[in-house]
Amino acid sequence: MTVTGPKGFRAAGVAAGIKASGALDLALVVNDGPLDVAAGVFTRNVIKAAPVLWSQEVLKQQKLKAVVLNSGGANAATGPGGFQDTHATAEKVAEVLGAGAIEVAVCSTGLIGERLPMPAVLSGVDSAVKALDAGPEAALNAATGVMTTDTKPKQAFARHESGWSVGGFAKGAGMLAPNLATMLSVLTTDAVADKETLDRALRAATHVTFDRLDVDGGTSTNDTVLVLASGASGVEPTEAELTELLTKVSHDLVLQLRADSEGATKDVDVTVKGAASEADAIVVARTIAEDNLVKTALFGSDPNWGRIAMALGRAPARIDPETVSIAINGVTLFAGGTTAEDRSAADLSGRAIEVVVDLGVGSDEATIYTTDLSHAYVEENSAYSS
Amino acid sequence: MTVTGPKGFRAAGVAAGIKASGALDLALVVNDGPLDVAAGVFTRNVIKAAPVLWSQEVLKQQKLKAVVLNSGGANAATGPGGFQDTHATAEKVAEVLGAGAIEVAVCSTGLIGERLPMPAVLSGVDSAVKALDAGPEAALNAATGVMTTDTKPKQAFARHESGWSVGGFAKGAGMLAPNLATMLSVLTTDAVADKETLDRALRAATHVTFDRLDVDGGTSTNDTVLVLASGASGVEPTEAELTELLTKVSHDLVLQLRADSEGATKDVDVTVKGAASEADAIVVARTIAEDNLVKTALFGSDPNWGRIAMALGRAPARIDPETVSIAINGVTLFAGGTTAEDRSAADLSGRAIEVVVDLGVGSDEATIYTTDLSHAYVEENSAYSS
Repeated sequence: MTVTGPKGFRAAGVAAGIKASGALDLALVVNDGPLDVAAGVFTRNVIKAAPVLWSQEVLKQQKLKAVVLNSGGANAATGPGGFQDTHATAEKVAEVLGAGAIEVAVCSTGLIGERLPMPAVLSGVDSAVKALDAGPEAALNAATGVMTTDTKPKQAFARHESGWSVGGFAKGAGMLAPNLATMLSVLTTDAVADKETLDRALRAATHVTFDRLDVDGGTSTNDTVLVLASGASGVEPTEAELTELLTKVSHDLVLQLRADSEGATKDVDVTVKGAASEADAIVVARTIAEDNLVKTALFGSDPNWGRIAMALGRAPARIDPETVSIAINGVTLFAGGTTAEDRSAADLSGRAIEVVVDLGVGSDEATIYTTDLSHAYVEENSAYSS
Repeated sequence: MTVTGPKGFRAAGVAAGIKASGALDLALVVNDGPLDVAAGVFTRNVIKAAPVLWSQEVLKQQKLKAVVLNSGGANAATGPGGFQDTHATAEKVAEVLGAGAIEVAVCSTGLIGERLPMPAVLSGVDSAVKALDAGPEAALNAATGVMTTDTKPKQAFARHESGWSVGGFAKGAGMLAPNLATMLSVLTTDAVADKETLDRALRAATHVTFDRLDVDGGTSTNDTVLVLASGASGVEPTEAELTELLTKVSHDLVLQLRADSEGATKDVDVTVKGAASEADAIVVARTIAEDNLVKTALFGSDPNWGRIAMALGRAPARIDPETVSIAINGVTLFAGGTTAEDRSAADLSGRAIEVVVDLGVGSDEATIYTTDLSHAYVEENSAYSS
């Protein structure tokens, strides 16, 4: 019970034959109402995949009935033909469900620059509609159908005490990056909400979750997070309650994405506090999180704080070398412009690593969720064409 | 004949015992005049090593007589004690040469956050002064004494037809980055030049050479490029001539730095043209050059232009997806918003790879010199504490 955990949703995941391997590669999520409200956030990459351009138009309308997702191809950089393929996919779903094409969002993930095998996609839609179900197996199949180099499906669910809930799945393994980690995620809720409230709640939730996951600095052409509200619980939460539960489920999914990201051997939280602004805290944390010398040191379980100092010192933020402190796993290694405790005091042998930088110039803070840079990352990304 | 190629210079490189290995670790370059003019450019990292802070003060004066450099320790993030160590090193050199301490620049490279073994440094200065010589062996020893993970010394030399020349050496293997690749370089010339002209010529030369080398996005705490002019040729070139020869020698050194950078198996030129401004061309080229998914694809000899499209689309520059084209090794793979030639047409099996992106919105261009991201990079940087 995840994406179909909230009342009013059915899902399916099928093997449409888009992937040569015969693995599940097409997913469908349908909102049975009574409401058909939705919100979405999309990649900020200038080069947007056809399904992103399409789904952005869908979200400008008032209604969203269904989302169809495929792995096995990103349908990005595919020109007008690729956009027609996305449109045809939405039309096919709409036709089978008895809705309008403009009420169907489309998400794609996989190799950039290749056209999709449309006969397989369209017949896959037929199979998916037949397989639609509100049970946990159908939800799991949907979460599995969007996987690329993910090794396991990512699902999450949370229930509010007043009788409504939020569920969802996500995929993403590389190209996880600034401004929406490269990924697709569909969230559902049976709360009653209007479009504007849902949109604000989603943006607030992604701002501190999906936007803070940064594995390799990449920003995909296809990043999409959608939330669909069915209203089937009959309960209308406050905007704060809605934001809180969406944040909780999104945070859960983000930690799963990080744990399964390509080649990761460390789960690294980079927290920057004492910043002059939240933007400063984010950019400093991101600069540290994306630095390959920091990431390789962490892979080697090496508390080489000098590389963290080097990285933060090149971030475009208000930084005073004399007030900065750097702690790793609770041990302060740099403070007052010089060495503090000996680096040998910091134990980085475990998988979880916490880097805390206090800039000492303000009171804002932010955490970026990242990983190390391992041999497996290089292997996977030099051998796998995606 | 390199750093001592131009008339009026002597150099030395000795094993001072800073490195436990007993390798050469201290270098000295002395300007015997008649002029003692110099210019320098330094890291833009906010966290600056003690020798950078010191040498910046030296460059504010009119005279520079000598540069002392050490490997085996960066003397960065070492507080007031570290600054005193740098000052004591300059004083020692000044005392032995009969100059003022403020006429002696200091450069250090190695692990951040450790104090230098000062008895070794100071006795090393004595040895270096005794070993000073204008011959090629002394120049080679100086170039070798600054090496850290470099596998070979980098030297360059060029002579102008009117009878003056530029020579120099450089070191740098990782942390090669924006705004001065992390490195140290000492250039010499026997041209006659005033300080202001020399400074402008150096800045123009580094702007298109050292500033354009970007192996891993890191910006060191210690980056320094110095040029010393002896005037011993008696020839005063125009500023354009001086800039041209400094650029030629700097470019030669940059290509050597790239070829020897940590774990590199590919020499990659990323050229962005058709940009709305030079700044746009630089930021787009740099974003591509620093992208780990691009770098790992190049390591795998994979012409995965989709990752280049992804990377450029997230660069903060004026970009129109419809006018962008991407070519690798002369084969256009993306144009007009969609696939052009098949990716199999691009052969990336050799060491040299040329990525050319035409943004199609202007007439400015820039080239960033970078590498791939290999297993060896991860190995070296997770195992070597620097």
